[in-house]
Amino acid sequence: MPRKILEEKLRLMLAEDIGQGDITTAAVVPSGLRVEAAIMAKEAGIAAGIEETVILAENLKLEVKAEVADGEEIKNGQSIVKISGDARTILSAERTILNLLSRMSGIATTTRNLTGKLRSARLKTKLACTRKTAPGLLYFDKKAVQIGGGDTHRLHLDDLILIKDNHIAVAGGVAKAVKSAKQRASFSKKIEVEVTKVEDAVVAVEAGADIIMLDNFSVKQIAKAVTQLKKKKVYGKVLLEASGGIRENNLVKYGQAGVDIVSIGELTNSVKALDLSLKIARIK
Amino acid sequence: MPRKILEEKLRLMLAEDIGQGDITTAAVVPSGLRVEAAIMAKEAGIAAGIEETVILAENLKLEVKAEVADGEEIKNGQSIVKISGDARTILSAERTILNLLSRMSGIATTTRNLTGKLRSARLKTKLACTRKTAPGLLYFDKKAVQIGGGDTHRLHLDDLILIKDNHIAVAGGVAKAVKSAKQRASFSKKIEVEVTKVEDAVVAVEAGADIIMLDNFSVKQIAKAVTQLKKKKVYGKVLLEASGGIRENNLVKYGQAGVDIVSIGELTNSVKALDLSLKIARIK
Amino acid sequence: MPRKILEEKLRLMLAEDIGQGDITTAAVVPSGLRVEAAIMAKEAGIAAGIEETVILAENLKLEVKAEVADGEEIKNGQSIVKISGDARTILSAERTILNLLSRMSGIATTTRNLTGKLRSARLKTKLACTRKTAPGLLYFDKKAVQIGGGDTHRLHLDDLILIKDNHIAVAGGVAKAVKSAKQRASFSKKIEVEVTKVEDAVVAVEAGADIIMLDNFSVKQIAKAVTQLKKKKVYGKVLLEASGGIRENNLVKYGQAGVDIVSIGELTNSVKALDLSLKIARIK
Amino acid sequence: MPRKILEEKLRLMLAEDIGQGDITTAAVVPSGLRVEAAIMAKEAGIAAGIEETVILAENLKLEVKAEVADGEEIKNGQSIVKISGDARTILSAERTILNLLSRMSGIATTTRNLTGKLRSARLKTKLACTRKTAPGLLYFDKKAVQIGGGDTHRLHLDDLILIKDNHIAVAGGVAKAVKSAKQRASFSKKIEVEVTKVEDAVVAVEAGADIIMLDNFSVKQIAKAVTQLKKKKVYGKVLLEASGGIRENNLVKYGQAGVDIVSIGELTNSVKALDLSLKIARIK
Amino acid sequence: MPRKILEEKLRLMLAEDIGQGDITTAAVVPSGLRVEAAIMAKEAGIAAGIEETVILAENLKLEVKAEVADGEEIKNGQSIVKISGDARTILSAERTILNLLSRMSGIATTTRNLTGKLRSARLKTKLACTRKTAPGLLYFDKKAVQIGGGDTHRLHLDDLILIKDNHIAVAGGVAKAVKSAKQRASFSKKIEVEVTKVEDAVVAVEAGADIIMLDNFSVKQIAKAVTQLKKKKVYGKVLLEASGGIRENNLVKYGQAGVDIVSIGELTNSVKALDLSLKIARIK
Amino acid sequence: MPRKILEEKLRLMLAEDIGQGDITTAAVVPSGLRVEAAIMAKEAGIAAGIEETVILAENLKLEVKAEVADGEEIKNGQSIVKISGDARTILSAERTILNLLSRMSGIATTTRNLTGKLRSARLKTKLACTRKTAPGLLYFDKKAVQIGGGDTHRLHLDDLILIKDNHIAVAGGVAKAVKSAKQRASFSKKIEVEVTKVEDAVVAVEAGADIIMLDNFSVKQIAKAVTQLKKKKVYGKVLLEASGGIRENNLVKYGQAGVDIVSIGELTNSVKALDLSLKIARIK
Repeated sequence: MPRKILEEKLRLMLAEDIGQGDITTAAVVPSGLRVEAAIMAKEAGIAAGIEETVILAENLKLEVKAEVADGEEIKNGQSIVKISGDARTILSAERTILNLLSRMSGIATTTRNLTGKLRSARLKTKLACTRKTAPGLLYFDKKAVQIGGGDTHRLHLDDLILIKDNHIAVAGGVAKAVKSAKQRASFSKKIEVEVTKVEDAVVAVEAGADIIMLDNFSVKQIAKAVTQLKKKKVYGKVLLEASGGIRENNLVKYGQAGVDIVSIGELTNSVKALDLSLKIARIK
Repeated sequence: MPRKILEEKLRLMLAEDIGQGDITTAAVVPSGLRVEAAIMAKEAGIAAGIEETVILAENLKLEVKAEVADGEEIKNGQSIVKISGDARTILSAERTILNLLSRMSGIATTTRNLTGKLRSARLKTKLACTRKTAPGLLYFDKKAVQIGGGDTHRLHLDDLILIKDNHIAVAGGVAKAVKSAKQRASFSKKIEVEVTKVEDAVVAVEAGADIIMLDNFSVKQIAKAVTQLKKKKVYGKVLLEASGGIRENNLVKYGQAGVDIVSIGELTNSVKALDLSLKIARIK
Repeated sequence: MPRKILEEKLRLMLAEDIGQGDITTAAVVPSGLRVEAAIMAKEAGIAAGIEETVILAENLKLEVKAEVADGEEIKNGQSIVKISGDARTILSAERTILNLLSRMSGIATTTRNLTGKLRSARLKTKLACTRKTAPGLLYFDKKAVQIGGGDTHRLHLDDLILIKDNHIAVAGGVAKAVKSAKQRASFSKKIEVEVTKVEDAVVAVEAGADIIMLDNFSVKQIAKAVTQLKKKKVYGKVLLEASGGIRENNLVKYGQAGVDIVSIGELTNSVKALDLSLKIARIK
Repeated sequence: MPRKILEEKLRLMLAEDIGQGDITTAAVVPSGLRVEAAIMAKEAGIAAGIEETVILAENLKLEVKAEVADGEEIKNGQSIVKISGDARTILSAERTILNLLSRMSGIATTTRNLTGKLRSARLKTKLACTRKTAPGLLYFDKKAVQIGGGDTHRLHLDDLILIKDNHIAVAGGVAKAVKSAKQRASFSKKIEVEVTKVEDAVVAVEAGADIIMLDNFSVKQIAKAVTQLKKKKVYGKVLLEASGGIRENNLVKYGQAGVDIVSIGELTNSVKALDLSLKIARIK
Repeated sequence: MPRKILEEKLRLMLAEDIGQGDITTAAVVPSGLRVEAAIMAKEAGIAAGIEETVILAENLKLEVKAEVADGEEIKNGQSIVKISGDARTILSAERTILNLLSRMSGIATTTRNLTGKLRSARLKTKLACTRKTAPGLLYFDKKAVQIGGGDTHRLHLDDLILIKDNHIAVAGGVAKAVKSAKQRASFSKKIEVEVTKVEDAVVAVEAGADIIMLDNFSVKQIAKAVTQLKKKKVYGKVLLEASGGIRENNLVKYGQAGVDIVSIGELTNSVKALDLSLKIARIK
Repeated sequence: MPRKILEEKLRLMLAEDIGQGDITTAAVVPSGLRVEAAIMAKEAGIAAGIEETVILAENLKLEVKAEVADGEEIKNGQSIVKISGDARTILSAERTILNLLSRMSGIATTTRNLTGKLRSARLKTKLACTRKTAPGLLYFDKKAVQIGGGDTHRLHLDDLILIKDNHIAVAGGVAKAVKSAKQRASFSKKIEVEVTKVEDAVVAVEAGADIIMLDNFSVKQIAKAVTQLKKKKVYGKVLLEASGGIRENNLVKYGQAGVDIVSIGELTNSVKALDLSLKIARIK
């Protein structure tokens, strides 16, 4: 995303936190004082949000030097970004920067951990997030997943036809829903269908779906579904996504059962922030 | 907050998710179809975000009926909000509504759980959140804490003088920082000071602080600090807040050690969303 | 797109035109006067923008009744929308409404005319627009194309990988570009590649492209390309889009030559507005 | 208009096109790659939108060099703007820049063509546009007309009293409408009145109008009106504007018939975009 | 100005005052309590801002009944607006409403007082304000002047050519400046020129100016100027505006000296707010 | 407040004044002309708004040099800011800059005058403003008060519990209102109560108020109240604020009567702007 558009999103975040002004720095920090500060990791993880930090800091006329890039590993105690400039500005923006950086790094850290398990098991299965993000943070949450090695899935409601249970209910069945989508949607979009039974998967593929989401299937059910889809000569023609009930401890088994993608809503809606802090290192 | 201002915040959240339009409902759901839907809890917890859900739904010209109020307990399987109206609108707004409702309810649930422990121990200690929220969600995260029975602490940077380590560093010590604040800040604001040593607490109180934050003190250190503050005849004159390292399993001990407030950043920056879903109940 | 989001887009259009207020109505039209008005067609065409007109008018607290629906044919002299309410409001909003309605109807009319030619020739070829719209009017221009029976193609830059000449240049060739996209893009997006030679089409398909855009191919060149792709057993495996140099008089030939989609930038960047006007019919 | 205000308008146009990010450049173009690009004319015309292109490009931290100025002639094949910098940024902004530049240049080209005809006939008649622009593009459309040598007419609803048929209908006649305007409007604004009969022109002038718009008069009717206005000693005291039915082939005749201004809605609502493209010239 | 656009301006004013929420009403006023309130005048004056009050209150879902209309006289102790509905909402919006209403009414009161003096002296001289308003309040300040019977003068920078000293300096003299404006500006705009010497007035009129502003002329100098302009047969051909040094006590003399307009910056930049308050009258 | 957030507020002020563009400079001032200008004081006072002027000018790519700092005295005839750069930009922004600078300086001048009287009388009494500002200008008005040596009081509705007559009425009395606030509001906020009788002051203090506002008390009543509060041993435990009826001529007496704060709404709602002008000093 071009920097100019990110700047505006970041400015709004900062503005909310500032309110009518940072009364503490105004009362305690001398005007015009220049300092050097460092953002320090208080636990290990994967860096994400570094680009945003640099943009916000530069936009506030601060000098900033990223010491790790987005996607790199960071160790407990490591300095990850150096910021210098006007002390009041740094202290007023500190929390906004840390909130974004620690959320994005938290997401990237979990994502990397889980994709690492799939890679260790020599699986090509993709790990995807969903649209279950913090409200208003779709862009940042999905970018953090991508930095962690995950797949962003739908970016929002306009880039993939994803037919879920409620759509099927109002459309009058899987076949009708997919045919309607096939007929009315742009050729430039893929069509994914959420199913709860293998038979519906077959129907969906025959109606023209590109991706099948097996919703809340256990590992055993996935395996059985794969067998049936192979029998129907459908397996391999479309992508298979497993969703629902997938956790760190069964992720690899889902992958081994034969799906192309596993998706986990908790990646972005139950985030554990990475512990970071900002320290004034030197008063110039 | 007046409804009109909330409406705009909610509209922006929805707009981000919609992008250029919900291509799935446009392709699959008949125009003009009217349905009834219910938001169902898939686990027990405390409801929060109900007011926002009602406002957003009404603003989208949907009929909405809250079946629980903010702050009430909800059971697994319970229907918490009924929404009826245009099917396309309901399905396009579903995820935005659920994302906000499940985040706020998740925060309220954890907060209620922790304040419950303090109440069970017959403590008056307040549980507070911090400014460590999801970026841009200060208002909603803090409101959810309040619904759960917690204290919102600072709403943003303009409503409390909170002098932290970095401020003290640039101001040249605790006494100087507090005196500067006392002199330059409005009479209408309280002054809080973060200290890492009991001696600094005494200095801060003598310089005019209203609240002392004991930063990263163990329970044992808190107890010792209280003893010393009593000796200095300072205890009871100001509010004491403990912050850092406080968890479900030691929370009560911190309260028993004699602080007025315990604050926990994880309440709002490491949220576990409450599991909710929306189901179309009836096609009219 | 949910009404609430459209309202804001429409409000901004109106606000630009109003400036500091409509000084003519303030000086000439009595306050509180209520009138009935009609939007009349001054030439035949296809209606588009009716939904937007209704939303804007209702949002201004006017009563509005659409006499044709989006996508319906309108005749010269036909009344297409009735609006009644405060005279000043109607006259102040007249031009904004007509500008949107006449642009969208103009686009829909041309699109319907061209898709009609394809249908008359019993072709299934889709007619698509491009991102060559009036700046800032992507949503409305593409919606008008859709109403006219065309395909919206990409809605913006985030919903289809479309690798064009410049991308290929910097990526170092077609194969490299497609492989990079295949590896780094989400599974939920299709990949389209623009080529100027048939050989590149084959390369792109083999690398995993879903759609091939044959750029500036004459009808003869398209026919030759189809032959070669059939020989390579690639034809039918991917969608073929012809783009560049396509006009009303050769459109059908392009379709007959075997492409799935023909796309025309002029549909949205060289629009002829449909001639409409608003008349006060009755002063109450 | 000060650059800072333009920047925001341009940022919004870009943001709409970007959505959640340009997934093609992210997937295909290496991060940090620097290139040189040129915007090339694919047909001859008059440049307009150059200032906007420079502002948007500089605002995106690109280096930009305009090779023609707004209002200058450009030839088929000519390079008109050179842009260099980050490849991803250039490719993501390419379409927004070209859309604005080709629309504005298209408008300026047509305007110059028509004003040229008036000048060749040695007429001082001004060619004006109307408020019939693309919705939301008033500023850019009118600026392009001005660059092409046309008159912007009203910039929006607050800078000229323009009493049209509907106003006259609700005000109860031409005389009443103009008197009301004369009495209630600021001295700083001119008053224009649209009439369909010569008698009304005389009434309007006597009531104090500054400009008369002869609406949908044929050339013959204009000539006759001029004769009558001369007889009434009104000709020359006010400006005369002809509007409706004016085209390239009768424009000069309208001018010769004695009006001061001819206005044409199609200048801005039925625009033919100038064909331009952007080419990566060199990878650094 | 259409209500919808005013609503947004009023919403932003309210939002600034609310911050993260009205903590007093939240803590003290029961949720759901309904009350009746009245806005009372604590001094006599002219009402202005009533329309805005009604719009804001209705927009907040309050019932509102204006007891005086904009422009009517109000007496000390009079109830001017009745508002009923949710107590929290009324109390949270109280200050925003009163601030706007008391500023606008203060402006209207002073304006009416001064225009009354001109009318009593049987002068047709118009009293105008300038662009010296509170920053960001151009629309409301000028509307209040109009309600008080004054002339709004320029609404902003795009609706009148007003050539002032600095413009003349850079243009190289009055004649050059006016000629340049005449040639380059739209026919739809008037041209006003600020002069400090009578000779320049003559030059300006001859070059085509529509209005002459006599800047900082004493009453005596005005009279002398009028004599000279009559001698030059220029008087009556253009409008004359006196500006600078005009006060309540010399206003009539300026009018008698023969100018068409007197303008006073203090009308809008040195406002005395009318004293108003809101009282809860009844708890339902 | 960080510069980036101020920039946006200032941009919006400028944008309102510009409308569709400054047609005077476009018509009269050559493009690209560079000049030097100075903002001159036409009366003595205290500078405020200098920081905002610098930010806006720099943001418009002008060179700017403040010759006085916010809070410094300025003399009649003194040059206070030098601005150089593009002539069109300077002239288009002139009025927006002067409007803000003259309002803020006017507020600071009055505030300094009044605080000076308190200091001369060797009083420590603080002079505070209220929320009675120009609508939408809370931030700038309060900052100007602070620059003039006054206290900002509440910044908006979220930073102090201020229980006024209407709140007390709906809450059912002073004691109930304060207890409710004490119980429900965050520990981080002070509680102020407005009273009209001394007895209520005692009740409020006993219920836990931090500040008592004596509303519309005469100096004599204040003195009596202080005596009673001393008798009740309440004096000195809380802050006392006098509000209502305080003017330049009785301000010192209020201070001497024993209150800690005097507050005056007119400081910000009945502002006399400082007279300033901008002159082009040199054409480069």
